Amino acid sequence: MPLLSELVASMASGAVKVIDLTAPLHEDTSVISLPPERGQPWPFQREVISRYDAAGPEVYWYNIRMSEHTGTHFDAPIHWISGRDREDIASIAPSRLIRPAVVLDFKAEAAQDADFLLTQAHVERWCEDHGALPDGAWLLYRTGWADRRLDAQAFMNGNHWPGVDPGCARWLAEETGIIGIGVETVGTDAGQAATLSQPFPCHWYFQGAGKYGITQLQNLDSLPPRGAVIVTSPLPIVGGTGSPSRILALVEEGDGYSLSGTPNSLHPKRPDSTSLSSEAEV
Amino acid sequence: MPLLSELVASMASGAVKVIDLTAPLHEDTSVISLPPERGQPWPFQREVISRYDAAGPEVYWYNIRMSEHTGTHFDAPIHWISGRDREDIASIAPSRLIRPAVVLDFKAEAAQDADFLLTQAHVERWCEDHGALPDGAWLLYRTGWADRRLDAQAFMNGNHWPGVDPGCARWLAEETGIIGIGVETVGTDAGQAATLSQPFPCHWYFQGAGKYGITQLQNLDSLPPRGAVIVTSPLPIVGGTGSPSRILALVEEGDGYSLSGTPNSLHPKRPDSTSLSSEAEV
Repeated sequence: MPLLSELVASMASGAVKVIDLTAPLHEDTSVISLPPERGQPWPFQREVISRYDAAGPEVYWYNIRMSEHTGTHFDAPIHWISGRDREDIASIAPSRLIRPAVVLDFKAEAAQDADFLLTQAHVERWCEDHGALPDGAWLLYRTGWADRRLDAQAFMNGNHWPGVDPGCARWLAEETGIIGIGVETVGTDAGQAATLSQPFPCHWYFQGAGKYGITQLQNLDSLPPRGAVIVTSPLPIVGGTGSPSRILALVEEGDGYSLSGTPNSLHPKRPDSTSLSSEAEV
Repeated sequence: MPLLSELVASMASGAVKVIDLTAPLHEDTSVISLPPERGQPWPFQREVISRYDAAGPEVYWYNIRMSEHTGTHFDAPIHWISGRDREDIASIAPSRLIRPAVVLDFKAEAAQDADFLLTQAHVERWCEDHGALPDGAWLLYRTGWADRRLDAQAFMNGNHWPGVDPGCARWLAEETGIIGIGVETVGTDAGQAATLSQPFPCHWYFQGAGKYGITQLQNLDSLPPRGAVIVTSPLPIVGGTGSPSRILALVEEGDGYSLSGTPNSLHPKRPDSTSLSSEAEV
């Protein structure tokens, strides 16, 4: 059977499921708060065009405004000065929008310390248990922050939320083959990232290396540590620096993972490997 | 090999390709023109928040505005009064966002007659050559209109562009298993659809049946008549009537179709079938 036919059949049977990693978008969607001298991103807002009324008796629709970086969104390299000569959001090759993902769970650590920073040692320890970071894959960083999404005050938490330390961000961006980092928080960097030795290290190093960020993800607890495939879908805004984006995951029932439950904490150790084809062993 | 691992490997080898069906989004993206007493959708516009300047020395980003139905976009059932009690854009199940597609090519007919309307007889004749419309799949209607995209006047063409006749729209929406219709034009209905016996028949019947529309597609000439899988990605605007959307297609090199060329016009006849699993034979 052709592979895509098998995919369609597996989706119809439920053997492959689509999981939505996107936060619902509405007027209360949190946006980053910046010092008043900075330019400010618009929160999501809408104005009715017509609602089955005189302005359009059969039509209901809205005009909408937001920023490129409002809600669950995709950061393109030119979003940061370190990536200023790299891709805008419309220039990213379509083949880079459908990629495998690994999920690193540091929810327990972030629950203990809202300013928790992921280090290279943390990632290397994860790799001992779950195998190397696959080339071309997303690293999705689970912190439990999505659980706060419905409470804007807890989500923004006075600008205290977890992130990645500068050394780890540099290593991930410059010395591993991952395509980008995905987070549950309002942006890819920690709430206190302005105070780090390299301020905003995820933005600085990832965008500087021509890599990407995706934000405000949810449902990462429904993904296995390895094996999911992620579809990102930024609007192709010509010259744009990012875009609100639906993020969907394909997950397959298989070894060590049940779609009906939580990821198997006894996920077996697997040999190191850095190629995409290593996924064959999962 | 697990199916998703095989998908990743096939994408890495080029056996499965990702084709972008989305029109680039910018200030010149065409929006539908309506009588002045009607509410008007906003064209795409942007305002710089900062561009590596005093408003954000390390950051480049835009605030953006548009309508839910600007550029390549997804129509939800509540967009039309016939579907007013059905799904908003955020309520559509994620599993409905990744679906197979068939491509019906009526470019020659639309080149002869800008007001060409697809009829049930046209679709039935297509099915004789290519098999039945698969349940749960998108019907993508190729008219060649995407070739006019860079010339707004030719694209809008004084409100003369091809569409679907009311009887065919009713039949497709109510008596076939397709999930929705995708078009190359500014909206799913013909330029002269206000004058038809059922005005705006695609909107009326598809949205009324809880089905969907996708618009302003391009690169349909890179898809086979059957066998592609389409990812649609509307933003989950809570209560929204539609959304600008990236639309990606997965296409597999296989029987009767070469990725390096155009679809095989000698595509073999295949037996009638209405189930997704029939795709196995393609």
